Amino acid sequence: MSELSVKCAENLEKIRQNKPLIHNITNFVVMNYTANVLLATGASPVMAHAENEVEEMVGFAGALVINIGTLTDFWVASMLKAGKKASELETPIVLDPVGSGATRLRTEAAKTIIAETNVSIIRGNASEILSLHNEDSKSKGVDSLHSVDEAEGSAMSLAKELGATLAITGPIDFITDGSRIIRVKNGHPLMPVVTGTGCSATAVIGAFAAVDLDPVSAAATGLAFFGFAGEIAGKTAKGPGSFMSGLLDGLYQLSGDDLVSGCNIFEA
Amino acid sequence: MSELSVKCAENLEKIRQNKPLIHNITNFVVMNYTANVLLATGASPVMAHAENEVEEMVGFAGALVINIGTLTDFWVASMLKAGKKASELETPIVLDPVGSGATRLRTEAAKTIIAETNVSIIRGNASEILSLHNEDSKSKGVDSLHSVDEAEGSAMSLAKELGATLAITGPIDFITDGSRIIRVKNGHPLMPVVTGTGCSATAVIGAFAAVDLDPVSAAATGLAFFGFAGEIAGKTAKGPGSFMSGLLDGLYQLSGDDLVSGCNIFEA
Amino acid sequence: MSELSVKCAENLEKIRQNKPLIHNITNFVVMNYTANVLLATGASPVMAHAENEVEEMVGFAGALVINIGTLTDFWVASMLKAGKKASELETPIVLDPVGSGATRLRTEAAKTIIAETNVSIIRGNASEILSLHNEDSKSKGVDSLHSVDEAEGSAMSLAKELGATLAITGPIDFITDGSRIIRVKNGHPLMPVVTGTGCSATAVIGAFAAVDLDPVSAAATGLAFFGFAGEIAGKTAKGPGSFMSGLLDGLYQLSGDDLVSGCNIFEA
Repeated sequence: MSELSVKCAENLEKIRQNKPLIHNITNFVVMNYTANVLLATGASPVMAHAENEVEEMVGFAGALVINIGTLTDFWVASMLKAGKKASELETPIVLDPVGSGATRLRTEAAKTIIAETNVSIIRGNASEILSLHNEDSKSKGVDSLHSVDEAEGSAMSLAKELGATLAITGPIDFITDGSRIIRVKNGHPLMPVVTGTGCSATAVIGAFAAVDLDPVSAAATGLAFFGFAGEIAGKTAKGPGSFMSGLLDGLYQLSGDDLVSGCNIFEA
Repeated sequence: MSELSVKCAENLEKIRQNKPLIHNITNFVVMNYTANVLLATGASPVMAHAENEVEEMVGFAGALVINIGTLTDFWVASMLKAGKKASELETPIVLDPVGSGATRLRTEAAKTIIAETNVSIIRGNASEILSLHNEDSKSKGVDSLHSVDEAEGSAMSLAKELGATLAITGPIDFITDGSRIIRVKNGHPLMPVVTGTGCSATAVIGAFAAVDLDPVSAAATGLAFFGFAGEIAGKTAKGPGSFMSGLLDGLYQLSGDDLVSGCNIFEA
Repeated sequence: MSELSVKCAENLEKIRQNKPLIHNITNFVVMNYTANVLLATGASPVMAHAENEVEEMVGFAGALVINIGTLTDFWVASMLKAGKKASELETPIVLDPVGSGATRLRTEAAKTIIAETNVSIIRGNASEILSLHNEDSKSKGVDSLHSVDEAEGSAMSLAKELGATLAITGPIDFITDGSRIIRVKNGHPLMPVVTGTGCSATAVIGAFAAVDLDPVSAAATGLAFFGFAGEIAGKTAKGPGSFMSGLLDGLYQLSGDDLVSGCNIFEA
């Protein structure tokens, strides 16, 4: 029973009590699953992307989650508008740079959002996170070519450079703000076989950031909760279809007490 | 066994026999689930939103379902075009004013659609419905801040003012055209934990409106059918994931006979 | 045990080994399910539709899948751009002309894509395929008014005319390039009750085309694999909800050996 496991349980209970509105500007592929993940967690999701609506909507939100998975220029404009308003309101912003490093549009969009808004937490796979730093990093589509290990050193300096908490997910998740390092060992091998588990993890981090002012613990506890629900789903899943369904059930069923014993979080 | 339960069974059988095409201009979050709900019911869903296509498509439809859940100005233009054509053809229009009252874009879009097209039925939660009437009504995101009870008095006068049937859903659904009042007590507490159950209920009302000329009974019987399928799903669900799947199974399995005994519809 | 069943098993094993990136420009309704079907199969899906990204993205892809299910002019422009680049790179293009024949926008978009890019395989229902040929063919929404049988003669000449392999799906699938004819008898009656099974079948054909240079056998073996997974799902499904989930599990569980005995493919 670590201090962070207790924090994870407390954060979950705060989410269920306060039901923070999480404003998502996310991709078409994962909108439904992300909304269901947030509802199962206990938060209140809203998806809104119109340029003439996002500033008003983000005003009600406990966190803004920006995900660049199916991007066009129109969407980038809305993301920037929402992100600037959230920055002004000191509402936490969580960024998921899906496919950054794979195409110029995505890499530039991610970098612009980071430059022009006050992003608090960035969650991605190793390639995506490294692409924010290193011109030579190459992604293959939206999958990762880098291991979490390779990315750790680079991530420490990048986190300092960007002034943001980075959460690199993989078999073991690595979270750093440039000085602190936390590793999360919850999760299940079927997670990468379901589309949108990474994107949903980012949204869950948004819900945790809405109730936890420390971005490092918000990211780590959100990932531990999400990964632990995956472990529960994995116990009965026959494949990715039943896993998807079981993950939503697991998120809904988990109590704070379950998390105190089930979280696998380690601070280095 | 009430008269309306028999009507519910008859409507379902007509849908399964005629497989009416239901033209949906709906939000990105629920498109997949809504299409699956309509297929499980026995209707034939189509999603089409291009300005240069909607008039042609609505010409084939038994009902037009308009849902403003992820709106931009471009979509409003298509909704108006489709709605005007449907009005001309006397095809029933069912509106879901998702998040009306939360942002100006949504409130104005809902009001414009009601003003410029011949909307037959409007389904929403209490806040959304009241926002169509009362400038002071406030929504928190897309969730309801009003109870169904509070909304009833206001809904009666609003239904008359708008010349439309209103269906306010909650633990007990309230349907009125300003003179008749029907309450539907079918449903399950997991419904609001799944995104798009409200939107799907609206689409089911569209299918019922395609075979039932009376908008009050179309709305009430559609909601009873949908809620009863939720009760069936709730019997075995372990959480929102298995509930989502069970709801589609329930809609598909239900027969007219089941509805005659299972509908919980009361005319005041 | 036919030669094509062995080819089906080999193709599946190649997909799982090489994890080809499948670039989808597809409709909003099926994006999530299509991505999950491709992941469960063993391929690596990416969805990208921005005009200023598609040429770069298709450069990484083993196949391009174009689906016109929720079209606007903006999307047609991106489909053409991606398709021209894929043609130049000799990357196989698989087209799903959803609703072609139902509206001018869709029929014209499908014909333009075929005229301006090097489409290798076209999968649709009988009405959709016939609409590419015959001005008088009429669709009702996105459902088929023609039986597979009626379409066979017309399909032979159309395949020659277009220089493409046609895959007409129905209770028995019919695949032809104008000279060879293959029939696939795998599948389950719940498939048309789930939205996006046709679209997902097209995406699976894309994955098979990425590892099989012969478009006729790629289409036939992809459909046999997908249909056989449907048979497995159908054994325990209680309706379309559990079928959807079971289909993903089935795709994931199936091995090459299963396919050698389970494929129901016949060359005429």
